[in-house]
Formats: sequence, structure tokens, C-alpha cells
Amino acid sequence: MVTQSSDDSKNLGWTVNIELPAPSLQDNRADTDRLSHALQREFGLVGVEIDLPLRKSLPRLLRDSDYRLRCLVFQDQGRGILIHATSEDDPVVMAGLAIDLGTTRVVMRLVNLDSRAILAEDAFDNPQTQIGPDVLARIHHADEAGGLEELQQSVIGAVNLSLSKMCRACGLASEQIHLFAVAGNTAMSHLFSGLPVRWMIREPYIPSSNHFGLLCAHQLGLVSGPHARVFIFPNVGSYFGGDLIAGILSTGMHRQSKTAILVDVGTNAEVVLGNKDWLMACAGAAGPALEGGMSQMGTTAGPGVIDRVRIDPRSRDIEFQTIDDLPPVGICGSGVIDLAAQLFLAQMVDIRGKFRPENCVERLSYRHGIAYLTIVSAEDSGTGKDLCIGQAELDSLVRSKAAMYTILETITEAMGLMLRDLQVFYVAGTFGSLINPRSAITIGMMPDLELECYQAMGNTSLEGAAMALVKRGMIGEIEQIRDTVTYLELNVNQDFMNRFSAAKFIPHTHTDWFPSVRAISDPSAE
Amino acid sequence: MVTQSSDDSKNLGWTVNIELPAPSLQDNRADTDRLSHALQREFGLVGVEIDLPLRKSLPRLLRDSDYRLRCLVFQDQGRGILIHATSEDDPVVMAGLAIDLGTTRVVMRLVNLDSRAILAEDAFDNPQTQIGPDVLARIHHADEAGGLEELQQSVIGAVNLSLSKMCRACGLASEQIHLFAVAGNTAMSHLFSGLPVRWMIREPYIPSSNHFGLLCAHQLGLVSGPHARVFIFPNVGSYFGGDLIAGILSTGMHRQSKTAILVDVGTNAEVVLGNKDWLMACAGAAGPALEGGMSQMGTTAGPGVIDRVRIDPRSRDIEFQTIDDLPPVGICGSGVIDLAAQLFLAQMVDIRGKFRPENCVERLSYRHGIAYLTIVSAEDSGTGKDLCIGQAELDSLVRSKAAMYTILETITEAMGLMLRDLQVFYVAGTFGSLINPRSAITIGMMPDLELECYQAMGNTSLEGAAMALVKRGMIGEIEQIRDTVTYLELNVNQDFMNRFSAAKFIPHTHTDWFPSVRAISDPSAE
Repeated sequence: MVTQSSDDSKNLGWTVNIELPAPSLQDNRADTDRLSHALQREFGLVGVEIDLPLRKSLPRLLRDSDYRLRCLVFQDQGRGILIHATSEDDPVVMAGLAIDLGTTRVVMRLVNLDSRAILAEDAFDNPQTQIGPDVLARIHHADEAGGLEELQQSVIGAVNLSLSKMCRACGLASEQIHLFAVAGNTAMSHLFSGLPVRWMIREPYIPSSNHFGLLCAHQLGLVSGPHARVFIFPNVGSYFGGDLIAGILSTGMHRQSKTAILVDVGTNAEVVLGNKDWLMACAGAAGPALEGGMSQMGTTAGPGVIDRVRIDPRSRDIEFQTIDDLPPVGICGSGVIDLAAQLFLAQMVDIRGKFRPENCVERLSYRHGIAYLTIVSAEDSGTGKDLCIGQAELDSLVRSKAAMYTILETITEAMGLMLRDLQVFYVAGTFGSLINPRSAITIGMMPDLELECYQAMGNTSLEGAAMALVKRGMIGEIEQIRDTVTYLELNVNQDFMNRFSAAKFIPHTHTDWFPSVRAISDPSAE
Repeated sequence: MVTQSSDDSKNLGWTVNIELPAPSLQDNRADTDRLSHALQREFGLVGVEIDLPLRKSLPRLLRDSDYRLRCLVFQDQGRGILIHATSEDDPVVMAGLAIDLGTTRVVMRLVNLDSRAILAEDAFDNPQTQIGPDVLARIHHADEAGGLEELQQSVIGAVNLSLSKMCRACGLASEQIHLFAVAGNTAMSHLFSGLPVRWMIREPYIPSSNHFGLLCAHQLGLVSGPHARVFIFPNVGSYFGGDLIAGILSTGMHRQSKTAILVDVGTNAEVVLGNKDWLMACAGAAGPALEGGMSQMGTTAGPGVIDRVRIDPRSRDIEFQTIDDLPPVGICGSGVIDLAAQLFLAQMVDIRGKFRPENCVERLSYRHGIAYLTIVSAEDSGTGKDLCIGQAELDSLVRSKAAMYTILETITEAMGLMLRDLQVFYVAGTFGSLINPRSAITIGMMPDLELECYQAMGNTSLEGAAMALVKRGMIGEIEQIRDTVTYLELNVNQDFMNRFSAAKFIPHTHTDWFPSVRAISDPSAE
């Protein structure tokens, strides 16, 4: 029998090679009881359930494999379940699927549950978007007859499609998929499992379930192994979902003594502040200030899109970098932030984010009374047209960055801390991870910390979901995070609006909060 | 919220009226989490699971019922499950079915899970008998292709048929059946759930499962409510099944300080000895001695069958009582025991159980060299023929009673006790309960205890199964019984054979062990 110290066991996976003592007249426990006891001990669980169909095949399997099995177990809320069992020397891969169930985009990662290797990744637009563009529209649609089922089936169908594509690509059969871990916001998790969402958006904003239990994959319509289970990350409430818990899990901030902040710049700005002792979160739209959101600036990253900008402060020549080094066709969100920072440092925009015509000179033009700055002229662009940024876009960026900074400031001060005291700043989300922290500091979107404090985390929801698939200690941590998180309702009151107004300058009304920006931005001070 | 002291709660049922605090901005737990927490507290469980389809309907139900529900919960091995929920004022009956799953006969009792009232009872021959007459034949049949499924479907089909008949009779819909409790021997429980039985009869005699978990009724093919669950009494091993655990449960001997013995005289003689501190059991056939078994003596009880016999010790006239007071057509097992006792007391058989021609006179006749005693002459019988008992039948009875006594003696002495010291003697089984203890003592089948020590318990398996349906404390007791029982392998060795030989006299070689019999049997001693 495998023995493991309890400390090591946290890092072990959900698969285990286990050798049972063969039965004898002295030890005549039943087959399933024998296996269940051994798995209980191995996983430190009170009980390990075995589905009836597995029970039926187990006696033959035990004898054919000489009582040496490779087992896949999973657990949730203390309930252990044997999901698959095969002979120890059976080389078949047992795979699991991690799903970042985004409102607009779904990202999936197929992993080998034994080796923890990533087998494949895929992403697709959430097909529910065609039914309802945003969460609210989908919640209303779910209230119509058959609407909830339609929403559920659309996303499950798309997951099946993408999964079967991944399986084909790496030579797996769908029967080899035994485990799913799904990290989504509360509404997405409900729609995925077909649970009512009606009361989530009505005071007092109650979800159907915060814990989803270990669902049967077949019950949800997922094409998978015969006993496959689905773990959906639990929610804290209607406005704090499993995607954020997965995010926290992947940073490990809930295990650290240092207080860290995690910012997920997605459709909404979602912020978590905390350490191993406490976690404070605020999420969702911060009123009209963030409408549109940071992530809707610029175009989607793709070939030829500008993602880095540098402006020579003396010549004011604009240098840029495009994805795949192709002729420029647009500028993505992180490029816009770079651009704004560089424009400010080159004194081509003022502290309000307004173009300074005297420094922009012939790059500036006007259409319908709105100023546009040409970044790339038609002859150099990949589209045959000038690539421009308008004053309206810059105004929107300033509002968004001000809202972001205000949220960061509010949550930090709510805990009696100052932003500048933070030592770890995690930036999550695909878009967020592309942001150049130096530029984000320059425009005052993020606080003026040492650059090494900033850590780009990528897709933390997907990462957290994948961790749950391959490390058995994660389930306890997920529950611990869920129970620890306090949700701060953002109160868009006069104090918030005052802070917001002060943040609507580049970098900020209080320039002394951004010492590193002042030093560079004022060449005359050198 | 219902609150109950933990002592009282053992006697409560599985249904509960529960009022949840309505959600608010301050208490914004999700619907299922809110209910699950309340049920956990009410039932003292670590967790209460709620199936996905129930989760889907719960949010609407909670709001329509103003957060006052009537819930049916069940648990096994610490795992609680919500099986049904309805509005507190919904008058619909929630019913459960207790099944005594006998090898030859299946007896079922439909109960109201709220009021605990018995709604209906029914019994039918186990249709598996047509596939294999005994357990061994069925185990061999299960090994053939499709054999196990055939055996399972035959008994499930018969249960469904009988259940639908009972439901019709008491105006219930099958959707109102939410819970099944099944008490059968290990093989019957396996065949009921479709689990392999092949290794039960091969050394070291390993069942597939000792614990069956809470199976979904639909998975077994049982026609029932949408979330109905099936509790199958756990086994101790291949030769000690859930039927005996149900039997012990129904007597309560596992809760008593006094040492009691429980004898189930069914197809096999099954014996349990013990008290609240220990339980010792032996079961199964005791070698060739019990072949045929006590229960196969005489004819099945029915109208016109003789079930009580009295012989005037002086005139030697035979008086009898028949079922429904009809002209006699046969004699059932308990009638045979009565008859043998009375024949002995009237000195019409000797201490070896052989007819004494000098005292039987004209009642004795010979066919093919075997002596027959006419009990009822052709003119008085309901068949138009003499009703007789043959010497062979008496010889068989003597062998059987000797085996029974030897088993009782062996198990009692194995625990360092004497049979005569026992203060409580439970006789279980439909046949066993009909036995007149006075007659059983007279022939030396049961020990010579005070008559008030004997308690006829009826169908203890059915009773125990029904208790599990209506009293929540029983699940813990069942597990406690299962863990406490020690199984004594009956070793048919020289010592056993010596005891057996000594018991093959009426009442026994050691007549001083049966003082009450000696006093009456020897009129000349008066």
C-alpha cells in the first residue's frame, strides 16, 4: 500500500497506484470495501464512494490485475469518489479538462492526470453570446420557456466540440476524459449546470447554489468516461464566482504572509487583496465609470496589431512593435496603454489626457470637431489607411484607468493599508498580462510600486482549474479561500467620486504618489 | 428551525418540516446551501447532498412555499442525501418500501414515511427460484452470459409488479415511493443490485460489496419517485447478510444488557447470541445434519392445515386445530413439532423417536416396510384419504432438531455460557414464530427455559427493514451491529458430532437438562 506523509500528500495528484492485500480467510472483506478502505487511507478521506457500474466490474478487475490497481479518485466537501480504476500496468492515459468558462470566451486545457502534462489547449467564443451578449441578457433569456436549457446546451455543445477536437489531436478517446474542473463566474457556472439564475439579479441577489457537488458529466451532457465527474468551483455569492477563487488559488496569495493584490482585468475589473489570514474582494462593474471596460479598448490582439509603443521624447518619433512583425493594422489594449504613457512622457498629451497641438503638430487632424492623432501613416500601415487614435478614445482610457485606480485605492484603504505599501501586485487575465506595468504606472492606472512587484499571471482561472485537476490538496484550499473571502460591496458614493475625480489626471492629481513618473516626464527638470 | 435534543432525534423519522430564514442582504447564502446547512444541523450530518434535478426546482419551491418545506432525507455511512422536498402544507404522502428479500419468498411492506403507518403488505415467491432453486444454483447461473442481469431483472420486475399492486390498493402513485430498504442475505442483495457473486462461493468466499451505498432506485430499474434511493442492509460477509442484521435490529438485543439468543428458523438455521457489548453469530447449513431443514417439514401453512396437535396421554386420542377450522388436509411444520412432542408425551414414540407399536396400536400401518401413523382417518379428513406421518419423517425431524440444538449449544458454549442461563430467546421467521415453544422444548429442539423467555418475533428482517425506513437512528445502529458481529464458522468436527449424537434423543441423552419434560413425560413417576 502507498503511504505518504500528510504534508507531501497535498502535492500528489488524484491518481494513485495501489496494491491491496489479497483476500484470505482471515481478511475476507468484500472487494469494494477492501478498495474503499485503502483509498480512504491514501487520500485521508472519511469515505470513498464507488458507483454501481464500477462495483460491478471491480471483482474481475481486482483478480485479473493481481490486486494492483491504478485508481482515479476525486473529492469535494469531504466526499470521496472513485472515478476510474484500471490495472496498474494498463498504460492508458487518464485525462482531465480544465475549463475557464468566461462570459465571452471559453478557454480549455486538457491535462494528463498522471503526469500533469498539458496535452492540448483550445479556446472559443462562448456561444451563449449569440443568445444574450452579456450576463444580464442571458439571465433574462433563461427565464423564458426553454431558455435555460438552450443556454446550457449551447455551451455544453461547444465544450464537447472543442474537447473532441483536442482529443483527436492528441489521440485520446472521449472515454479517457474522467474529470472536469470548471471555473466560471456565478452566472456562467449556473448556466453550465442548468440551475436557475432568476434570483441572482433580484434583491437580495441569491444564487441557486454556491456549492455544486460532484456532478456526473453525463448528466450535464458532457461526452466523457463512464463515471466522469465535474467539479465546478464554488461561488461566494452572485457577484463573486468560482473563476475568482480559481484565480486566487493559482496565485497562492492565500498561502503567503505578505499582503498581495490581484487584479483581473477582464470584462469587469475584479480585485482581491489579502494574505494567508484574510482576503477582501470586490468585483463587478464599478458603476458607469468602468462602462465599456479597459478590455474593450483597441482591437483584439492578432497578427499586425501594435502591442508596444515607444516615443522618443525629443524627436517625438513613434516607434512600435507589431505581433508577428507584420505591417501595422491596428492597436490592441496594451498598445493603447503604452501609447498613452508615451504620449504623456513626450508631452504630446497633457495631464488631463488632452492632445497638446503644439507638440503633436502635423500628426493631429480633426474630423467632425474631434481631434485624431496619426500613429502610422497610410503608406506605412498594413491597411492602406492612416492608423489613428482619437481624443474620445483617450478620454475613455482616462476614465477607465481612473476607475481602476479608485477601486484599488478604495479596497486597500478599506483594509487600513496604502497602495504604495503593497509588495506584490498580480495582474491576471489575458489582456491584463499583456499590459506593460511601466506604462500602466505612467498613466496612473496602477500604483507606483517597484516594477518587480508586478507579476503577470496570464489566465489565472484556467490555471486554478488545472491545479484542481492535478493536485489533491487544492480542494481543501479552494474551500478555505471560499470561506475566507469577504466581499466588499463597492459603494459609488461621494467619497468614491472624489477619489475618481482626483484619479482622472495623468498620472494623478497627487503627482507625489507617482514619484517615478514625475522624474521621467519632466525633461525640463533634469 | 426545528431543534431536537440528540437523544430524541434517534426516534425521529426521515421526514422533517423545516422553516428556513428568508434570505436577505445580510444572509445571502445560496438556496441549496441554505437548505443543506439547515438539514445538516437537523440530522446531525457533516453534509447533505442535493441531486442536480432537485437543485433545479428548489429555488422556485423555496419562494412559493415561503421557505417552509417538508423534506425527506436519508443517510448512509455519514453521507446525507435530500431525496424529496415539497411545500410544508403539501398533503401528499411520502412512502417507503421495506423488502424482506428471501431466497424463496419476498415480503414487502409499504409505509407512510411521515406517520409510520403501514399502508400495505404483500408477499410473493422469489421468481429467481424458477431460474435456480437455491442460492448455489443462482450463483452458478449468474456466471453465464446475461445470467446475472436475468436474475436481477426477474426479482426487480416482481418487486415493481407487487409494488404497483400495493400502490393501486392504497391510492398512491409510484412517484410517491421515495425510499427502499432491502434486507436480504448476501447473495440475494448482490443479485438485487446486479453485483457479481462468483467469488462468494470460492475460497476465501469474498462478496463484491459489504456496503452497497445509497443506490438510485431508477438505476436498479425500480419504478419510483424521481430521486428515490435504495438502502441495502450491509453484509458482514458472504455467509452473514443484511437480513440477519435487520433481524438483530428488530429485536433490539444489541441494545440490551441481558444476553439473548436469536434463532431464525428459515431455509437455514441462523443463530445470533449476544448483548449490547458483543454479538456472535453462526449461520448457514450445519453440514448434512440440517439438510432439508426444519422449515421443509410438513406442508405450507394454509386453509385446513393442522397447526396444533394435542394427544390425551391416557386415551391417546389425537385432537387438532386447523387453519380456518376447515377439515384437515395436511400438517404444517409447527404442527409436526407439536405432534412429535405429543406422541412422545403419550409414549407413542420412544426416546429415539421411533413409534411404539404397543401404544400406537391400530393407528400404525406399514407400507414398503416403513411404519406410518394415521393422524386423521379418511372419513374425517378434507382430502378423503388418511392423513399420516411416517417414521422417515419423524427420523428427519429428530435429526433436524438435534442439529438445531447442537448449533445452539455450540455457539453458547463458545462464549463460555450455558444454554440454560439464557434469559431471552427470540424465535424469528414466519415458520419459527408459529412453533409452540412448549413442544419445541419437549422434543429437545430448544433449551428448557421458562416459557416466558421465548418470544416469537415474526418476520424480523421485514421488521428491521421497516425500522430503517422510519427511524433515523437505525442507520447508526445497523452499522454498529455490522461492526460488532463476530461470525463463528461452525466446525462440524468430532466434538460437534458427539453433541449431535447426544441430541438425537427426545428430549436429549441428558434428560436432566430438560427437567420440565421429564416431569410430564413419565406419568408413572407421578
